[in-house]
Parts: sequence; C-alpha cells; structure tokens
Amino acid sequence: MQNHVTIAPSIMCADLCNLEKSIKEIESAGLDTLHIDVIDASFSPSMPLGLSTVEQLRKITDMNFDVHIMSNDNEFFIQEMLKIGVEQITFHLETTKHVDRYINMIRKHDTKVGVALNPATPLSALDYVLPQCDTVLLMLINPGFASDKGEAQVPYATKKVEDLYNLIQSKGLDTSIEVDGRVSLETIPKLVNAGADILVAGSTSLYAKGQSLAENKKTVENLIEEGLNEEVRVNG
Amino acid sequence: MQNHVTIAPSIMCADLCNLEKSIKEIESAGLDTLHIDVIDASFSPSMPLGLSTVEQLRKITDMNFDVHIMSNDNEFFIQEMLKIGVEQITFHLETTKHVDRYINMIRKHDTKVGVALNPATPLSALDYVLPQCDTVLLMLINPGFASDKGEAQVPYATKKVEDLYNLIQSKGLDTSIEVDGRVSLETIPKLVNAGADILVAGSTSLYAKGQSLAENKKTVENLIEEGLNEEVRVNG
Amino acid sequence: MQNHVTIAPSIMCADLCNLEKSIKEIESAGLDTLHIDVIDASFSPSMPLGLSTVEQLRKITDMNFDVHIMSNDNEFFIQEMLKIGVEQITFHLETTKHVDRYINMIRKHDTKVGVALNPATPLSALDYVLPQCDTVLLMLINPGFASDKGEAQVPYATKKVEDLYNLIQSKGLDTSIEVDGRVSLETIPKLVNAGADILVAGSTSLYAKGQSLAENKKTVENLIEEGLNEEVRVNG
Amino acid sequence: MQNHVTIAPSIMCADLCNLEKSIKEIESAGLDTLHIDVIDASFSPSMPLGLSTVEQLRKITDMNFDVHIMSNDNEFFIQEMLKIGVEQITFHLETTKHVDRYINMIRKHDTKVGVALNPATPLSALDYVLPQCDTVLLMLINPGFASDKGEAQVPYATKKVEDLYNLIQSKGLDTSIEVDGRVSLETIPKLVNAGADILVAGSTSLYAKGQSLAENKKTVENLIEEGLNEEVRVNG
Amino acid sequence: MQNHVTIAPSIMCADLCNLEKSIKEIESAGLDTLHIDVIDASFSPSMPLGLSTVEQLRKITDMNFDVHIMSNDNEFFIQEMLKIGVEQITFHLETTKHVDRYINMIRKHDTKVGVALNPATPLSALDYVLPQCDTVLLMLINPGFASDKGEAQVPYATKKVEDLYNLIQSKGLDTSIEVDGRVSLETIPKLVNAGADILVAGSTSLYAKGQSLAENKKTVENLIEEGLNEEVRVNG
Amino acid sequence: MQNHVTIAPSIMCADLCNLEKSIKEIESAGLDTLHIDVIDASFSPSMPLGLSTVEQLRKITDMNFDVHIMSNDNEFFIQEMLKIGVEQITFHLETTKHVDRYINMIRKHDTKVGVALNPATPLSALDYVLPQCDTVLLMLINPGFASDKGEAQVPYATKKVEDLYNLIQSKGLDTSIEVDGRVSLETIPKLVNAGADILVAGSTSLYAKGQSLAENKKTVENLIEEGLNEEVRVNG
Repeated sequence: MQNHVTIAPSIMCADLCNLEKSIKEIESAGLDTLHIDVIDASFSPSMPLGLSTVEQLRKITDMNFDVHIMSNDNEFFIQEMLKIGVEQITFHLETTKHVDRYINMIRKHDTKVGVALNPATPLSALDYVLPQCDTVLLMLINPGFASDKGEAQVPYATKKVEDLYNLIQSKGLDTSIEVDGRVSLETIPKLVNAGADILVAGSTSLYAKGQSLAENKKTVENLIEEGLNEEVRVNG
Repeated sequence: MQNHVTIAPSIMCADLCNLEKSIKEIESAGLDTLHIDVIDASFSPSMPLGLSTVEQLRKITDMNFDVHIMSNDNEFFIQEMLKIGVEQITFHLETTKHVDRYINMIRKHDTKVGVALNPATPLSALDYVLPQCDTVLLMLINPGFASDKGEAQVPYATKKVEDLYNLIQSKGLDTSIEVDGRVSLETIPKLVNAGADILVAGSTSLYAKGQSLAENKKTVENLIEEGLNEEVRVNG
Repeated sequence: MQNHVTIAPSIMCADLCNLEKSIKEIESAGLDTLHIDVIDASFSPSMPLGLSTVEQLRKITDMNFDVHIMSNDNEFFIQEMLKIGVEQITFHLETTKHVDRYINMIRKHDTKVGVALNPATPLSALDYVLPQCDTVLLMLINPGFASDKGEAQVPYATKKVEDLYNLIQSKGLDTSIEVDGRVSLETIPKLVNAGADILVAGSTSLYAKGQSLAENKKTVENLIEEGLNEEVRVNG
Repeated sequence: MQNHVTIAPSIMCADLCNLEKSIKEIESAGLDTLHIDVIDASFSPSMPLGLSTVEQLRKITDMNFDVHIMSNDNEFFIQEMLKIGVEQITFHLETTKHVDRYINMIRKHDTKVGVALNPATPLSALDYVLPQCDTVLLMLINPGFASDKGEAQVPYATKKVEDLYNLIQSKGLDTSIEVDGRVSLETIPKLVNAGADILVAGSTSLYAKGQSLAENKKTVENLIEEGLNEEVRVNG
Repeated sequence: MQNHVTIAPSIMCADLCNLEKSIKEIESAGLDTLHIDVIDASFSPSMPLGLSTVEQLRKITDMNFDVHIMSNDNEFFIQEMLKIGVEQITFHLETTKHVDRYINMIRKHDTKVGVALNPATPLSALDYVLPQCDTVLLMLINPGFASDKGEAQVPYATKKVEDLYNLIQSKGLDTSIEVDGRVSLETIPKLVNAGADILVAGSTSLYAKGQSLAENKKTVENLIEEGLNEEVRVNG
Repeated sequence: MQNHVTIAPSIMCADLCNLEKSIKEIESAGLDTLHIDVIDASFSPSMPLGLSTVEQLRKITDMNFDVHIMSNDNEFFIQEMLKIGVEQITFHLETTKHVDRYINMIRKHDTKVGVALNPATPLSALDYVLPQCDTVLLMLINPGFASDKGEAQVPYATKKVEDLYNLIQSKGLDTSIEVDGRVSLETIPKLVNAGADILVAGSTSLYAKGQSLAENKKTVENLIEEGLNEEVRVNG
C-alpha cells in the first residue's frame, strides 16, 4: 500500500533569520510542500510572518506553497498570494459572507483551493461548496492565540476528521483533509487513520527536539504507515 | 395546469435616465412585480441604486416592489423601505445576528418577508425561521462583484433549488422560492422544474438583446411552461 | 419525583437603587441563582447594567452568578467576569469565530460554561461543542431591543427546547437547557415539559405584579411541577 | 466686474424618474455644472443615489460632474468615479487617515480635487494640503441626516467661509470655495460676499417653488451680483 | 467674592448596592450635581454603569445629572439620555465626524451640551463649535483604562485649563470648564486658579478616606476658595 | 561641528531570506539603528514583515530597534514590541483616540516614544504631547500603498520638517525629527538642513544600486554634512 499522506512543514518553525538555509534543509529531507501561515492580527492576536518574506521565499524555492490565510480581509490577502504565485490558498469559512466568490477567485488562477474550519465550526458549512474545494483544513486547536500556547488538541479532533472523511466518501469526492494544530508524534497515527491526507508539521513532530529534521521525518513516516495500516479504518 | 411562476424584472436593467418610461413599458407587458436591489457597498463593492430613486418610483407606479437588501445595516434599510412602502423586503441571513428580529419588524408592517442566502450558505440556516418567511431568495451567483461580471451560475444552483423545494414540501409550507443571478433563457426551465416560483429577470432573459421586452416575456413564459411540464419534478 | 429545575431571577427586575435589599429578599425566598445580563450596546441597542455594579454585588452575596454576556467583545467581558468571580458565564455563539477558545478560557478557571443561541440560530452550531458546555441558553425573544418590548415568544420556542433536549439525550449528555425571554406563568409548564432546566425569571413570572416574590416563587414551582408531570415528555 | 461664481444644481432635486428631461432643462438654463452627492449610509444615514445612475447620466450629458463623496470607503468610490469619468471629485477629510493619498489618486487622473469639511472641522486640517486642492467644500449643515430636515445653516457659516477665504488669500492660492447646505436666496449674498465661488443649489434656491428653474437662476445670479458688489469684502 | 465652582461627585464612587442611600447622603451635604460616566467598552475597556441604573436613579432624585458619554455610538447614548431626562450631556469630540449634529440634537431638547476632549486633543478642535457649547470637559487622565489605575494627571493639565480659559475669554464667551481625572485635594487649587468651573470629584477628593463626605466637601470648598483667591489668575 | 544625524537602514531593504547575514553587513558598516516597519494591512494595504521575524532578529543583534507601527490596533502591537524589547516605538497619531495613553504605556517601559504623522496631518495634533515624545516621525510619502510605488515625496516635505523644527525650538525641546519616505541622495541635504535628525534609509539611499552598503553610507554621510553646513539653517 502506498503512502499518499503529505507532510507539510510549517515555515513558522524554520530559522527566520536564515530562511534560505532552512528551506534547503527541508528540500534535502525530500519534502516538497511548505505550509505558510498568513495571519494579520485581526483574525486572532498574531501576525507571525509578512508578505515580503513570502515574496522573497518564492524566489529561492520551487516547493509547493500551501498558504493558510487567517484574516478577515480575504480579498486583499488572496490577491497578494495570487500575485506571488503559490500552489494552494486556504481561507477560513468563518471570515466571509462570500465563500463561493473566494473559491472562484482562487480557482480561476489555476491555484488549488482550501477552506479552513475552526474547531467549533460544523461541517454543514460545507453543504454546497465541498465539491468546489481541493482541500478542507481542520483546525484542531484555536489558531493564533499566544496565551493558549501548549494547549491540547480539541477532544473532538479525531471525530471531526472521521466525520469529514465520511462526508467526502459519501459524496464520492476526493477532497484532501488537512489537519493543523498539535499534529504530534502521539496524534499522527489516529489522525491518519481517521482520514487525514496532509499533516501540518511543526514543533511537536518534524521539529521535535533531540533529533534532526531528517530523522523526525522518518519517524513521522513510520507513524503515518502505522495509522494507514490500522484496521479501524475499514474503507481507507 | 396554471402557471404560478412570477417574472420579476430587475430595475437595474431599466433605463435609469428615463425610469418612468421604462416602468410604463414593463407595466404594458403585463408584469406586476419589480425586483429592486438595494446594495450599499458594505456587503459587496456595489451601490447601483439610491433610496431617493426608490422613493420617487413609488409615486409613479403601483407595481409590487420586491426589494432585495444587500447590506450589513439591515436596521436602517428595512426601516427606509417600510417608510417608502413596498410589498416584499428580503434581507440576507449572513448579514445579521438578529434574523428573527428583522423578520418580525417586516411582518408587523404587513409586508412580505424574504430571506436571502448567498450561494455557499447551507439551508440549515433556515431550521427555525423558514415558517416565518414568505419567500426564500437563493443567490445563484455571488452578488455585487463587478469584477465577476459574466461569471456563470454556481454549479450547484439547481440542486440547491431542489433541496429547498423538498425542505418546504417536507414541512408542509407554501414558501416561495425566488432565484436571482443569471436566470437566463438557458437555465429557466430547469430552475422552474426544480421548484423556483419567482424569477429575477435581467439581461439574460427579459432584457436579452435582439427582442423587445414583450417578446422576451413571451419566450420566458414558454420556458417556464416547459419547466413546469417536465416530468422530472414528480411532486410538483 | 424531585424538582431539579432552577429558577434564576433576573437582576434587571430588581430595585437597582436598592440592590442589597433586593438581593436579601431573593435569598430569603430560598433562591440561590442570580441571572445577570451583561449587554454592551454593540450586540443590541441596550446596556442595562455595568461591570462595577456586578463587582459590588459580588461582595454582598454568595448566590450563584449566572452571567449572560451579549457583546461582540467576548475577550474583554469574559475576562472581567473571571476576575470578579462568577459561577457560570454564557456567551453567544453568533458573536465570535473562536467559540472553542472562549469555552476553554472559561473552563480553565473552573467556571461553568454556557453558550447562548439567538432564536433563529440552528442547533447545528453545536455539532462539535455541545459536550464541552455545561449549559445551552436558548433565547426565546430577540434580546435587547427596547422597541420590541412586549413582543411575544417566538412561535418555535417549545419546539426548539424539545429539539435541544432530544439532541442532548441522543448524545448521552447532561447539559442543562436554560430558557430566556417571556418565561411567563403561561409558558413555564410547556417549556419545562419540553426539557428546560433553568428558567430566567423576570417580570412575567417571579416579578409578576400583584403578588410578593415569595408568593410568585411558589406559583412558579407549582407550574414547574405541572410541566414535569405531564405525560407528554416520556423520557423526562 | 465679472461674475465668476458657479451655480451647481444638485442632482437630488431633479426628477429622478425622468433624469434625461431634467438634465436637458438644466442645460437649457445655461448651467454647466451638476453637483452629485454620493452617500453610502456609512457616513450618515442616507443613500440617495446609486452609481449606476451616475454611470448612465454620464452617457447623456457633457456637463461638469462635481461629485461629492460622503463615505468611509473613499478607495472604492473614488475609483468608481474615475472609471465613470467626472470633472471633480470631493471627499471628506474626516473619513480617512490617507488624505494626501486620495488627493494624489484623483490628480493623477487629471481630475479636479476637492476636499470637504463638516461644519465643526477646523481649517487647521488643511495646513499642508490646501495647495494640492482645486476646491474646498464647506458643509454648512450636517450632511445626510433625514431627521434634521429643515434645520438651519450653522450660525458660523459665513465666518467659516471668510476664514477660508482669508487663508487662501494669505497663501496666494486660487483654491475655489464651494458651499453646500441651505444655500438659499436669503444666504447667497453674504456667502458670496464672504468668498464663496461655487454654490450647491437646491430646493431653497434654484428649485425654489413658484418659479421656473430659469427664473430662479436669474434670481440667484442677481443675488450673487449683490454679494460680489457689497463693500464689506474689501480684498474681493 | 462668590464661589461659583461646582463640585460634581462621581456616581462611580457611590455604594452601587445602596444607591438611594448614597444619593441622599450627597443631597444632604448640599451638593446639587451628579457626574455620571456612561462608558460602553468600545471607547475604552470599561463599562462601569448601565442605562437602567441611570433610569432608576432619575426617579429618586432631582439632582442635576451631568452625563459624560464615552462611546463611539453617540447617536444611541445621547438619545437614551434625552429619553431619561438629564440636565447636561457631554460627548467626546474624538468619537464622531458629526460633532455639530450631536450638539444640535442635545440643544434642541433644552439640555445643556458639553464636549469632552481627551488629554492629547488640541483645542483647535473647538475652533467653530466652542460658542455652541455650555461646557468643555477636559480629561486630565486617559479615561477608562483599568490598567492605568493610580496613574497621575497628565503633566500639561493646568496649562490646558489655562489655555482653554484664555480661549473662552478671548471670544467673550461664558463656557464652563469641567475637569475630570485625579481632581484631588492637591490639584484642586491650581486647577481652579487656572479657570476650572466644574470639578468631577471622586476618590481623591470628596470620597477621600478618613473623613465623611460632608467633611471632605468642606475641605474641597476651602481649596476652591484658595484657588480662586490666588493672585496668579488676574482676570478671574 | 559634529554630525548627530542618525542613518536608520530599513529592514525592508534587507535580504529577508538571509537576515542574519544582512544584519551583520549593516553592523559592519558601523550603523547602530535598524528601522523596522510593522504594518498589519488594516492601516494600509501592506503587511511586509511579521512579529516572529522581529522576535528572532532581536536574538541575533544588539542594534537599536526603531519600530514604526502602522496599525489601528496599537494596544496589541505596542505590547508585543515591549515584550520583544526594542529601543524606540513609534505609532501614528491618526490611529487612536488615546494618544496620551500609548505614549505613557511605552515610557513606563523605559522605551523611547515616537509619534508619527501622515503627510497631511497638521502639527497642531502635537499641541499637548510634543514634550512627551522623544521623536516625531514625519511620513513624506503615503505609507504602505503598493500601487503608489515610485511616487515622489510630498511637495511640502521640507516645509513640514522646517515647521516642526521651529516648533520644537520655540518650546525649548530636544525632540528628534525622523523622516521616512523617499529619503534619497537628492533630498537628504535639504531635509537635514531643515532639521531632520533621523533618516530612514532605503532603496534610494543606503541601498541605492551600483554601490556597496558601506560606499552608500559614506555618500549619505557626506550629504548629511552638506545639509548641516548650508547657511540656510541659521539656528542649526
């Protein structure tokens, strides 16, 4: 059985004063997708990275840029990302009345579309747009609150992944499920088993201390394998 | 079988420098409902028509004014419409936390109430208020984005009309289904067949070029007939 | 059969110029829960009570403070309530993108969590967070609109309580159902019968004119008993 | 001595159901400037006219369009006006942190720039941008509040015009002074005498009842002459 | 020489659980003006008192209510105060583009008008509206920030009072100067000497610990006398 | 005569993928101040740099961080900067009603305070707070509008620096004047001559193409010398 699960290292865990070196290390480890959080302090009190940084990153690597916008101003940030040229743009359903519009805006530029849901957001929000999405990103922690650092995944994380997996299967779609938030060595097997396809990997997995990035990558791959092979997921 | 479907010409397609003449032409064609979009550039980047125009229109015609408010300030616009005196006021569920309040505010003035849903909004938003509504308006394009001009109807347009039709039937209600956005000569039969009761008619139907308004009206009526007679809609 | 239904007198019906005396009267009547509305005029045009009043109240009574925040700035008001020290904090799901975060913020302080729903809000909003809540508060009128004074409960009040009761039962939870808005002598039996556990009691019940608070309390208790004993509620 | 004062009829006083006819009447009276209020209900509770109306007006007349934007979203409305093609765009200094930017945006399109000041706004707001402006528009009533209809001009109207006139003279500029709000047959002489160059003319002057537009125009011109000839204005 | 300076005790220093008793004590001390802060947590993170409290206070005393609104929604709060019936309404110039409008709205109801300025706001903001105001309130601390508790008056407090006093004199007006923020036993003489007419009196003066309200009032009166008699203020 | 003018290279001109190397180059050139723009896309459509980048920069250099916040949420960004630990924090007067508060918040942390003014903002905004500021930053272009790239300095740039210089002198203060926006090889002499103390140096000076950073620095220093020596500035 082939492993289709993507490991997407979060740019936030890289050395921001030596990004070129960090990117080369990620590429050398054989990873091809970079998860980039774009937060503007209006969605949540956090603004980790700037647009000029993304713009300059674009010039030094051909990795797939998997951009996760957390902003109430999707109009601006989607257009900036389209100008820079990225492979996937994900925005939050909770941040706009014009969900279908932003999906179209991204698709028209031959860019993959993701929609993100905060932990509490029900899947019924996807009733009509799921077939238009390449990816659904499930936040498994509350995004961008510094004071919540170290907080655990929401207790319903695995259940929500399963529910989404079943919804996608029931509609005969091949939408990817991306999971973000404490996607750790402990939680990876069950998240993968529940149906996760893309893992946003940060300080609790790919950047776990004590091992090199390459070593951690091998560990994560083993855990993914474990998750895929477990019997629990019958229609996997 | 009687044709109960209403054709509501959009005021936006009229000659805005000669509105009185335009209205007379519409009346002469035997149409009794005028669809009026009230957009304030906060909901979407568009502000086609002003309130003074609606106010003066009211003085020259007894047509049914079917007003579609697209604003985040429902409190203001609903009250302005009630002052002017219109037959139906529709507002967007996505624009307020106080949906039930605005329904009541309109009903108390013996005015019909419509609630509008953007393309991506799920029907579960109607769980408790559907019985309070005279009309549900389904947007079949993203409303008010000039840069999207010429964009097609959302691919799930007909399915959403069907779902709403079935929901209304299952609750034993007689809520009208209004459809808005590229309600064209091509899409009318299947929209009507799916359950649409009120068609907002603009440049792709009643105002299609090459024929007079009266001729287009006849064409639209034939397409409605066609839609109503198709066998697909079993419980119609 | 034991009566577990809580009567929570609304502080808004007390004598605000003689609060200490009012509180003593409530305590003397054997009531142990005080419902406190915190509205900031951004959620709805109303700002009945201030934070300094709540702060001073805290110093003169050990009653359970059941605080109902109606604001778009949950971050601020929740933190203020946690500082003052109250027994339950309820906020509106419609007012934030970060529902799970605020639930956690309250729970971490060993304070009970309630989420409130406006009349039109569907129960699907609770899909993932219901198990995290101690209480769900259903608004049965539109909260905080002076111009709607005297308006009746929404016609779907009892049905919504029933639906929520069934949802809670189906998940095997013991979440409390709180009802707020014209919880009157007329509606109490059917609301209790439908599953309501906490009654916000104001001018149409505990503070009904013509009887003392103690007398009204007895009447309300009888109506609760009546509601609990009716056969309609089979799994009660 | 030549009369350089411009009379700018307000489009709001025209027959909005027969705009083409109204415009022809204005042109026939020998007037060449049309004052167009663009208000979006965010600046004040008013949205008299829509953009599509302005767009269609543009096609039927070559009059100078003197557009007065009252909105907090200058970015959008200025760009819409530049697309339509108008002769002067005036925006309110109170509505933006980026005053210099909008002045430049308009100038780059070879369009005249006006800045508008609400009654209470001090002239010190113009300290650095006055030389960049073709026109300063002084509001002499509070703009766009229906409930204030019939309210008198602010008592400091003439004084503010004088102060601005003196400021312009002291800097050796030739900025035009436009006055808006109850510019009536009674107030025109002293406003002109104080230094007003452009008069927004509505229901209390050009559209005063009992006389034709042409007759009112003659009356206004006589009052302007009177104002210009009064000795009070020594450096006129 | 007569003492015209008004001492306005701040309601926030009263016993909010026994307001009726507190008010009686204030009245007994011979004070006739009550300063009431209405803050809504949008202007600054504070919401001390509610509207229902003010409403009930109105029923138990005939004192002059000197209401200080700190909100971005002046439209709502001014109208609420006019409904309740108060003697003076003061709002912040920084919170609205429509300063003249709110001045008029208050005056039309035969209520005194005050405008308030934050510490950093220059007096040029008053250029045109000073003659329309009964009172100018100068904030001498930053209003409504709990974290700033105990912070000193701004170093330019006395100078700003003097500047305003001279401005009022130079225009031949009799506008009152109200001072708010750490108006303490230490600062009263120099504030009065600089021209202050109304002193908002709180925990550092009228409610200073160790003495009764009546005793503190006597002390404050002596300090006012001292301030008025100092030679510094020649035209006092 | 000694050269006291500070050259502050803008971090935005550095190599954002190799910041550590860029900083070392700046330090080697003998520069000790780094100008850091923090823009959040609410103030203007731009978000060049993130907070995590500033945080990591802090760990690799002891240069003076001269942070220029362009945001409407000063509360958040000032506190983030205080946590990171920077030498000067400058915020825009146009973005808050609570200017004095933010000045105090910064000063209490023994951090230098700057206030920034957009081009059109009059100096009267400084009437009361100038003595509280270490620095006044004058924007000489409109900040953060990508579409304005290449736009010239405002024509009143030198005059505004002169006016501010004279104001500071007249008050006997030693406030620094910082200039930002097209501070180029052409404009440096006259800006310095007019009174500028801190030059934000970017692509038109320190990072001008064709020469090394060290060479450009020498050129800039010569131009500063030239500006200081010109006779025009008599009290320099």
